[in-house]
Amino acid sequence: MDSDFGIPRQLSDLQKYRALYEPELPPCLQGTTVRVEFGDATTTADPSGAHSISRAFPHTYGQPLAHFLRPKAQVPDAQIITEHPAIRVGVVFCGRQSPGGHNVIWGLHSALKIHNSNNVLLGFIGGTEGLFAQKTLEITDDILSSYKNQGGYDLLGRTKDQIRTSEQVNAALASCKALKLDGLVIIGGVTSNTDAAQLAETFAEEKCATKVVGVPVTLNGDLKNQFVEANVGFDTICKVNSQLISNVCTDALSAEKYYYFIRLMGRKASHVALECTLQSHPNMVILGEEVASSKLTLFDITQQICDAVQARVEQDKYHGVILLPEGLIESIPEIYALLQEIHGLHRQGVSVENISSQLSPWASALFEFLPHFIKRQLLLHPESDDSAQLSQIETEKLLAHLVEAEMNKRLKEGTYKGKKFNAICHFFGYQARGSLPSKFDCDYAYVLGHVCYHILAAGLNGYMATITNLKNPVNKWRCGAAPITAMMTVKRWSHGPRAASIGKPAVHPAPVDLKGKAYGLLRQNAAKFLMDDVYRNPGPLQFEGPGADAKTVTLCVEDQDYMGRIKKLQEYLDKVRSIVKPGCSQEVLKAALSAMASVTEVLSVISVPSFNGQTPI
Amino acid sequence: MDSDFGIPRQLSDLQKYRALYEPELPPCLQGTTVRVEFGDATTTADPSGAHSISRAFPHTYGQPLAHFLRPKAQVPDAQIITEHPAIRVGVVFCGRQSPGGHNVIWGLHSALKIHNSNNVLLGFIGGTEGLFAQKTLEITDDILSSYKNQGGYDLLGRTKDQIRTSEQVNAALASCKALKLDGLVIIGGVTSNTDAAQLAETFAEEKCATKVVGVPVTLNGDLKNQFVEANVGFDTICKVNSQLISNVCTDALSAEKYYYFIRLMGRKASHVALECTLQSHPNMVILGEEVASSKLTLFDITQQICDAVQARVEQDKYHGVILLPEGLIESIPEIYALLQEIHGLHRQGVSVENISSQLSPWASALFEFLPHFIKRQLLLHPESDDSAQLSQIETEKLLAHLVEAEMNKRLKEGTYKGKKFNAICHFFGYQARGSLPSKFDCDYAYVLGHVCYHILAAGLNGYMATITNLKNPVNKWRCGAAPITAMMTVKRWSHGPRAASIGKPAVHPAPVDLKGKAYGLLRQNAAKFLMDDVYRNPGPLQFEGPGADAKTVTLCVEDQDYMGRIKKLQEYLDKVRSIVKPGCSQEVLKAALSAMASVTEVLSVISVPSFNGQTPI
Repeated sequence: MDSDFGIPRQLSDLQKYRALYEPELPPCLQGTTVRVEFGDATTTADPSGAHSISRAFPHTYGQPLAHFLRPKAQVPDAQIITEHPAIRVGVVFCGRQSPGGHNVIWGLHSALKIHNSNNVLLGFIGGTEGLFAQKTLEITDDILSSYKNQGGYDLLGRTKDQIRTSEQVNAALASCKALKLDGLVIIGGVTSNTDAAQLAETFAEEKCATKVVGVPVTLNGDLKNQFVEANVGFDTICKVNSQLISNVCTDALSAEKYYYFIRLMGRKASHVALECTLQSHPNMVILGEEVASSKLTLFDITQQICDAVQARVEQDKYHGVILLPEGLIESIPEIYALLQEIHGLHRQGVSVENISSQLSPWASALFEFLPHFIKRQLLLHPESDDSAQLSQIETEKLLAHLVEAEMNKRLKEGTYKGKKFNAICHFFGYQARGSLPSKFDCDYAYVLGHVCYHILAAGLNGYMATITNLKNPVNKWRCGAAPITAMMTVKRWSHGPRAASIGKPAVHPAPVDLKGKAYGLLRQNAAKFLMDDVYRNPGPLQFEGPGADAKTVTLCVEDQDYMGRIKKLQEYLDKVRSIVKPGCSQEVLKAALSAMASVTEVLSVISVPSFNGQTPI
Repeated sequence: MDSDFGIPRQLSDLQKYRALYEPELPPCLQGTTVRVEFGDATTTADPSGAHSISRAFPHTYGQPLAHFLRPKAQVPDAQIITEHPAIRVGVVFCGRQSPGGHNVIWGLHSALKIHNSNNVLLGFIGGTEGLFAQKTLEITDDILSSYKNQGGYDLLGRTKDQIRTSEQVNAALASCKALKLDGLVIIGGVTSNTDAAQLAETFAEEKCATKVVGVPVTLNGDLKNQFVEANVGFDTICKVNSQLISNVCTDALSAEKYYYFIRLMGRKASHVALECTLQSHPNMVILGEEVASSKLTLFDITQQICDAVQARVEQDKYHGVILLPEGLIESIPEIYALLQEIHGLHRQGVSVENISSQLSPWASALFEFLPHFIKRQLLLHPESDDSAQLSQIETEKLLAHLVEAEMNKRLKEGTYKGKKFNAICHFFGYQARGSLPSKFDCDYAYVLGHVCYHILAAGLNGYMATITNLKNPVNKWRCGAAPITAMMTVKRWSHGPRAASIGKPAVHPAPVDLKGKAYGLLRQNAAKFLMDDVYRNPGPLQFEGPGADAKTVTLCVEDQDYMGRIKKLQEYLDKVRSIVKPGCSQEVLKAALSAMASVTEVLSVISVPSFNGQTPI
């Protein structure tokens, strides 16, 4: 099997054309000389976790941000890296494939070869298992040729997303030592980047020379924080799914007799569902975050959908499209509690057949109420991150079933007087994951690959490659690196049997921000989407012409650029310092003092840890 | 609701761009003068049915083929149509939406307006139900503007594919009379075109002035015969599905742990599955036609898949992609027999709850063996064409279930020694049906719309618009019309309780030709597809650049052009006639006689009806 990796493949005409596409580099990464500017030491967004994190990561916590600048940038303290001794770097795909992953490797390879032709890039075959087993393939231009700008992870393959147990960590350490790696680049999502930080810390502790770098690559789009605006693959996944959702909307409007319940892959958080809603305007979306924050029960959600169906019937509309994130099921409070009991019994080694008989009376009553197919799916063993096997639980069928039962009941009772309710269910996930990556994902991943090289050239360990200002064209992108520990939070509390995980610092999946601009845009349009069928069809993913350069709505409205603002702040502080140099007039000094006193006072007040120091799950 | 039809819509950037695309017309349809050449009277492909068909269609059987030619074409007997009195035409979407349907209406409208600005085109709102209820919308350029080159049938909506009962036929007749229609254009598949022929016959009988024209528009691609090379929508559907299948193949190859079982919409015949296999090279496809011809049982198919899985495990491959046409389930002999019993009981008015207890002992044993979810789906009421509700029967889950059980059995028995078998199931259908149509479907549908006008201008009734030589560029397309009755066959026999349908002439769905070139290409590559993972990703549907002008593999290899050959034959006959005119030499006459005698003898021998006169179901 291993011999299949990296072999040249037959490409279709479109694939060949895409293979020839060369992403652009932002000005700061062009040429062979790059300046690195270090910012202040980093802290965490939630100060209450800072202590635990610094204790867990003594070697890698509190490192400064790094910004990569053009060699001619006018920044006094920036360090110019001109020496590029030959280095050996390993790269590994961790966890689920996300479109664009291949381009991280290409970008990294290209940067390595530009700076020293003796640099070596080793790809680990078969993901983390290849890392543990020291199975590698040396990446060459030849090997890359049929994988540039192509989807999937089939250049190297992938297995689990975890490098966590001490056996796994020790195996990784042994590999990096045996292969004499100067750097290890981990391509993955939330879990893999947490593990990358842990690995960096262990390596530093063990005085292993290998520096660990993480890259935010996950279709879920949930590796978001002050430093990371977007994840590689999210753009493509949302475009492919939006195409399919729009096609289903057109279908619904043509036949006018079906309600489509569409579940979307994307793990716990609802970013994919939100973005697809903003792109394709289906009638309804039920975000896990809304359900969790309003504590809506299964009954509440069913009633909400039925009321919407009935409102539409009053306008003589018998069709509709409803999106459901796969994480929704875990956000429903009573199902969450039931899942916790089931997973607890799993951990106690209770066999699947016996679980239902050992549930608490309350959980048992809920379990018995559920349709047969869902019972079987809820009983599946939990995933590595303790969540349920979300891709296997057919929430769309459960809700369609409950809505149909409720509509039939209303029909019988005479409170509903329309035609019979018909539902068709879909799960969109696997069919998008292997897609050719969009232009944005090709560019983003390729540039991130270059950034990885510069992180290693600067000798940094435990960092994630970051690019900000992504909503603007590539020539405006800002490249940098942030310590992964600065993205961590600590879960202070947890329901039921998950108490074990209390207090462990980790990068957590970011939920959809219910106070954010993207969600605001959805709320603003929700009534129109529900009633007016303003379906929008972005069409199939294009590589030329209109739509080819479109970016996600979320990225465009969120206007993050935290890294840019941190730099701007630093510029203001530097300016104050240069104006108020010793020798300046008494007036200037007094004015500066008074102004800075009020600024610091305001900032101190709003920076106090929130009331209970809890971070939402 | 009705007021929603034809309203302008918000289009995405790509949709706007596509709305501006203007399909080209073949030379024969350019300008306002078109020549019509009539061929010989038509017969049917299966001569044994000719008598029944001519009896059932006394007014419309045996009409000649029509070819539309450039005004300057050198054809002596062609009729030039220069008079274009104002006419009123109705158009109706029948049955399932197929991408490109809107362009038939656009093409028809454009041809009507070119030839006489007083021509009127009325679209029936809500499909056949609108036809019966005389609900119309006058088609204008304004209305069309946001529907040109767009998917779905939402300009007018659609309901059932049937115009069959005497109430329905009478309602249609009353509508056409009340609306003073000169022509009625029926956009649909096999069933709708059969009904179009019946309507044409009834209208002729009733001396109704409305001429009926059919257009081959069905995503199933099963309206194929000597006159019809392809159906509008098939190209798009296969491209969208192939994109998704390819993505899943890439996914399988990246994770290397799943078998994907993908069922494809497409009704009884397996054209969509065959074409998608040729485009994306999955590991396996099981065509309904193969299963029917080899009489493979559920057990046989399961063994076949398990053997394939095991052969791949020997190469250390634990992943794969298997395509299943939705019609497969009806092709499995024992399931077909079971379905016949169930449908028979439905017709006798037995309620769903009681059907299982009234099955024959044999059918009952099979039924009880099947998993719960499939039982419920097999019990659904049959469709209008007497087939099962194929889109609702999850054959992919049934086979995945049986294969998993068999692999577990082999594992236990020690005849299989690999890892656990994991399957993921998909149904691809609704998510493709509403797609933006491909360039080919846009062009084909638009030109067919123009052909419809010329059929009406020539005063023809009961014809289908045809275009041949489709695999070549538009400027080489040949436009014509063939009587729908010439495409009919008569089912001579039928299993079990379907005896009622014996002898009724109809256009039947064409099965995949197991002796044809497309299937041959599949067989030739099947072993390579199975073992070597030569997955091919045609990528998302493109409108510019590489791949945008690709046509289906089936169309390209089949090399049909029956209409072109019929014309060529006519030219030869004319040439003989002009050479051997009265007054020619004795030698020439004798040579002609002897040559023609042997030609006619050979043709008589090979034209004898086949042994039992049966047409395959």
